[in-house]
Amino acid sequence: MPVPERKSSRVGFSRRRLLGGAAGLGAVGVGAGIGWGAAEAVTANGSDGSAGQQIEPFYGPHQAGIATAAQAHAQFVGLDLVEGSDSAALTGILKVWTEDAARLTGGRAALADTEPELAHIPSRLTVTVGVGAGVFGPAAPAQRRPTWLRPLPAFSIDRINESVWGQTDLLLQVCGDDPTTVAHAVRVLTKNVRSRVRIAWVQRGFHHARGSTPKGTTMRNLMGQVDGTVNPRSDLDFDSLVWDDGGQQPWLAGGTALVLRRIAMQLDTWEELDRHARELTVGRTIPNGAPLTGTDEHDTPDFEATRMGIPVIPPSSHIARAHQRSAREQFLRRAYNYDDPPGPGETSNSGLIFAAYQQDVDAQFLPVQQRLADHDALNEWTVPIGSAVYAILPGIAEGDFLGSTLVS
Amino acid sequence: MPVPERKSSRVGFSRRRLLGGAAGLGAVGVGAGIGWGAAEAVTANGSDGSAGQQIEPFYGPHQAGIATAAQAHAQFVGLDLVEGSDSAALTGILKVWTEDAARLTGGRAALADTEPELAHIPSRLTVTVGVGAGVFGPAAPAQRRPTWLRPLPAFSIDRINESVWGQTDLLLQVCGDDPTTVAHAVRVLTKNVRSRVRIAWVQRGFHHARGSTPKGTTMRNLMGQVDGTVNPRSDLDFDSLVWDDGGQQPWLAGGTALVLRRIAMQLDTWEELDRHARELTVGRTIPNGAPLTGTDEHDTPDFEATRMGIPVIPPSSHIARAHQRSAREQFLRRAYNYDDPPGPGETSNSGLIFAAYQQDVDAQFLPVQQRLADHDALNEWTVPIGSAVYAILPGIAEGDFLGSTLVS
Repeated sequence: MPVPERKSSRVGFSRRRLLGGAAGLGAVGVGAGIGWGAAEAVTANGSDGSAGQQIEPFYGPHQAGIATAAQAHAQFVGLDLVEGSDSAALTGILKVWTEDAARLTGGRAALADTEPELAHIPSRLTVTVGVGAGVFGPAAPAQRRPTWLRPLPAFSIDRINESVWGQTDLLLQVCGDDPTTVAHAVRVLTKNVRSRVRIAWVQRGFHHARGSTPKGTTMRNLMGQVDGTVNPRSDLDFDSLVWDDGGQQPWLAGGTALVLRRIAMQLDTWEELDRHARELTVGRTIPNGAPLTGTDEHDTPDFEATRMGIPVIPPSSHIARAHQRSAREQFLRRAYNYDDPPGPGETSNSGLIFAAYQQDVDAQFLPVQQRLADHDALNEWTVPIGSAVYAILPGIAEGDFLGSTLVS
Repeated sequence: MPVPERKSSRVGFSRRRLLGGAAGLGAVGVGAGIGWGAAEAVTANGSDGSAGQQIEPFYGPHQAGIATAAQAHAQFVGLDLVEGSDSAALTGILKVWTEDAARLTGGRAALADTEPELAHIPSRLTVTVGVGAGVFGPAAPAQRRPTWLRPLPAFSIDRINESVWGQTDLLLQVCGDDPTTVAHAVRVLTKNVRSRVRIAWVQRGFHHARGSTPKGTTMRNLMGQVDGTVNPRSDLDFDSLVWDDGGQQPWLAGGTALVLRRIAMQLDTWEELDRHARELTVGRTIPNGAPLTGTDEHDTPDFEATRMGIPVIPPSSHIARAHQRSAREQFLRRAYNYDDPPGPGETSNSGLIFAAYQQDVDAQFLPVQQRLADHDALNEWTVPIGSAVYAILPGIAEGDFLGSTLVS
């Protein structure tokens, strides 16, 4: 998913290796001619391991993991505070997570990290923390709850398994290009607070591996569709659509709202459709995701275009129904594929971990979702089975802790 | 895990892009001086997506996915034939898998692939097929069963959950550097035979991402240990230890035996140990996996060395117990980490998908495993919960199908 990228920095990067590597490559390219030797050097894709040393900055006005170019792997962890947790308990958790996340995302072992070697390959690790409505009252001032921070209304299409994939008090979103690093980070972050929380669920997702598609390629979901084409891209877009401006809740300025939905794909029936029927269902071509009225993925769909009097993009198609009716009906989508072991008698257990970031769920996500729930040709093959809403905490400066403006 | 690498080839690789990319890089390195611009180009790790186009050859004397340098992701799928399956049914499955695997590993859509676009990024995809003892008799000549192809004896340390992670009739091992490609391949391979088999389990594993560690780096498991140092490396080693020579079962020449064990890690108690105790438990240092008597990972352990009269490598340590007592007690280990969602009240559900390839389970794996089961300091923190043994079919030439020598 092409979103504006933060500039990646690099630690532990040897200037000697840098000089040696680049100079050596130049020599091959120029002195030895362009052959497979040079191609191997160019395309060996980090056989020197340098991709593992790329770092996403932890400190800043916003938490990383949102405007960050989507990493290859994600774990979303939903946690509940144990009974009787108060503001001090929540503060303690947030301070531990801040300390751990600042170190781990920088490629340093957490304090008391029992497997420090697993922390040394950050691979663009990000840790993003959010809170659900449940913390307001018991553990944070009730009046600080944003009005949109509440369960979504029940949509007719929903088959939410609330006891499995429902709302939680806290969310940890851990993303990175290396699955081992992500696993280690989740282990550290959860075990260090294990007496204070209960893990309700863990959702594991993935994109194409780093390096296996050209940079900036929009992901494909497991239905084979290009997924996530329309997204805010500029800093201006992020400021006007994604980052909270503190207007309603001053403590949240720089944070954002996350709607996290788990959407199961009915691949067995989906695959009975031919390609033309699929393209009419979505409103985009399968090969490159172009709208049916265009040739390029990022062409603007023309919902007025007709052929023999029939709309080229069916009004019931997913993009026609999802398309914004106002400037406000936009949000950042940063979804991940999931593919878990199938249940008895099933072939697949696949779908999308749909993550939508925005300023105001009521104004941005809800009208679109209501329209899709009312009618979307795609609904026949997609089933929402999980749903939760979180306030993603603002970013912080060094020395501060995540959520300080919420709990203090 | 550093095993001998097959030479990767490349399809769909544009000569124009190759020339353009390498020449452009050369120009930056030489003409523009060595700066961050060049470093970005060198270390961008396949932002051109070329890693996605790397291919492991499908045809050959041995199946790919064994001597192949371990890819970042693996799915092991255990399947049972439906009741009443005969040789024709098994033959049909093997022919479908051969056709699908040849195409998918080459970056081409399978026949009747409903999501062909998900097949175009092979990323070193391999598909490896094995058969369990259950096919012999009903679906293959009973006398063709190798003597070692039977359940392992029950070891005292085992807590095998036979109904969940037990023996199956068939095994699909699908490995690749891209998790989306692996997911698609498993979907295609399983759905195309779904009326003829039942999926018993799917085990998903991972290593560090491609490009995030230097090429040839031995993996670390989720206990933080360097895992897989001692392994056959040369073609000679593979011929004498791994590849079946057809001596017992001529049909199996070029195949191999796989012992697949699922080993749960008790991370909560493991992490109570300090680093020194861990190193004594394993017999290797944590930072680089060197034996306690050496400085480099690949130094030969000296089990005779003492300090103040005490063995430097404890006789009860994992490497002392696992170390071969004869030339025959060696096999190829090609393990993957697993990290699944934790059960209620748990923090982690992690461990190792231990995969050991060899000519003869009875002569190679069993004596070592018996010794470890009798005593291994590591046993306190590792619990075998799954176990299965397969005959991995020989490789084939184009036009043939996997298992042709078994069923015909």
